[in-house]
Amino acid sequence: MRVALGLSYNGQNYQGWQSQASGLTVQDRLELALGSFTDQKISTVCAGRTDAGVHALMQVVHFDTTRDRTPYAWIRGTNANLPRDIAVQWAMPTRDGFHCRACATSRRYAYVLLESPIRPSVEIGRVGWTFRPLDPDALRAAADVLLGEHDFSSFRASQCQALSPVKKMLAIDLAKRGAYWRIEFEANAFLHHMIRNIMGCLVQIGQGAKPVSWMAEVLAARDRKAAAPTFSPDGLYFLGPRYEPQWGMPERTPAYDGLP
Amino acid sequence: MRVALGLSYNGQNYQGWQSQASGLTVQDRLELALGSFTDQKISTVCAGRTDAGVHALMQVVHFDTTRDRTPYAWIRGTNANLPRDIAVQWAMPTRDGFHCRACATSRRYAYVLLESPIRPSVEIGRVGWTFRPLDPDALRAAADVLLGEHDFSSFRASQCQALSPVKKMLAIDLAKRGAYWRIEFEANAFLHHMIRNIMGCLVQIGQGAKPVSWMAEVLAARDRKAAAPTFSPDGLYFLGPRYEPQWGMPERTPAYDGLP
Repeated sequence: MRVALGLSYNGQNYQGWQSQASGLTVQDRLELALGSFTDQKISTVCAGRTDAGVHALMQVVHFDTTRDRTPYAWIRGTNANLPRDIAVQWAMPTRDGFHCRACATSRRYAYVLLESPIRPSVEIGRVGWTFRPLDPDALRAAADVLLGEHDFSSFRASQCQALSPVKKMLAIDLAKRGAYWRIEFEANAFLHHMIRNIMGCLVQIGQGAKPVSWMAEVLAARDRKAAAPTFSPDGLYFLGPRYEPQWGMPERTPAYDGLP
Repeated sequence: MRVALGLSYNGQNYQGWQSQASGLTVQDRLELALGSFTDQKISTVCAGRTDAGVHALMQVVHFDTTRDRTPYAWIRGTNANLPRDIAVQWAMPTRDGFHCRACATSRRYAYVLLESPIRPSVEIGRVGWTFRPLDPDALRAAADVLLGEHDFSSFRASQCQALSPVKKMLAIDLAKRGAYWRIEFEANAFLHHMIRNIMGCLVQIGQGAKPVSWMAEVLAARDRKAAAPTFSPDGLYFLGPRYEPQWGMPERTPAYDGLP
């Protein structure tokens, strides 16, 4: 049987999602926990790989197993074996043909950015930071340039393994609560470092260091060197994938009100 | 001259405010930073000592020095020498007779509590946790019992150094946003562990494990053994002291919208 899990984690202590020889990744810790619980070797697939330091509110993971457990048992049994900064939020058997990555129609991320003359402290590791205030109108106009289907090569890390640099940006929502910007991105898929590279450009434009028109130039260049440096991973949260209703997957992002 | 600072910190990596031989406290790190910046030995006093793991949004600190620096220089020079989870938010020379502890008329704390069947993960170290839902009406009624002047001995840690167990609780505000309770306390002063011991009782009453009437019994007992176990420090934030307007102190709690 194939089982899907919804997983939340704080990325500060991990070298990202993807398994490494060091064992210091979220995937390594999850597979270790599942192995302890099932006494089987379990290999997992995730809906969206996250970088070192990036958090997830609702990563979706699937794996195949011969163990038959209730959803409640999968949650409790796995969480009992996971470190305290990783937790399974839900578990369910999947419908035939489900694949957490291939079936996802879009992914959503949020970037939380502290706008303050003083650097973060209480919220260290959980927010990005801009010293200078951002102009909301400039941010909005620059973000709008990215909506729709584009070749996002300018925002693509050299080590990106995607087959195509063409992705469809479905929405970019900008909101500010107190000193914190919350910038949400939804796309069919994202290239490696794509949001962090976009954030670097948005912050420069929001600060007035670059004009709004610069975003279109960067996009048109299809060249990583045209864009700003990769922004900090600290404020990036994977909110989760979306699926067609036929798969019956829960659409929940618990703890969202807890950001940052 | 006497200088006052507003200080924010994440308490997860420290053994509380108060200086210890280990050097692993917020006071030790602040005095080290001030020493590096001024090339003088600086001794600090704080408005409210925090326990290990407790955070501060606006701790107020004062110290005496012969160095004459601008407020901006105090902020920048100290922050350049502080670890990344501690930051000075403001600095100012004080008016004659100011003492950050003695002049404070009240202190405010917030406790952030995740109400969820699943333990915290993304927000690890920054929230307390209740597995069972809390009844808002029971919480409110139990909190009201504590308002006003009382002998709070039942909520006092054995190592408390306060001269008197009689304190005046000025306000307890209860709010819930998404899955997070935010419970704010204001009192003229607090005993050691007082909020964490009160939180232990509030959670038991909110969960229905104890009746609302239990709070009055615990309070009347004036005996630490009558109350619940001390609740986790993870969700506790010192919001800061209040002063009479004559002192001209800033009343700001930056990053508050960033809780938890």
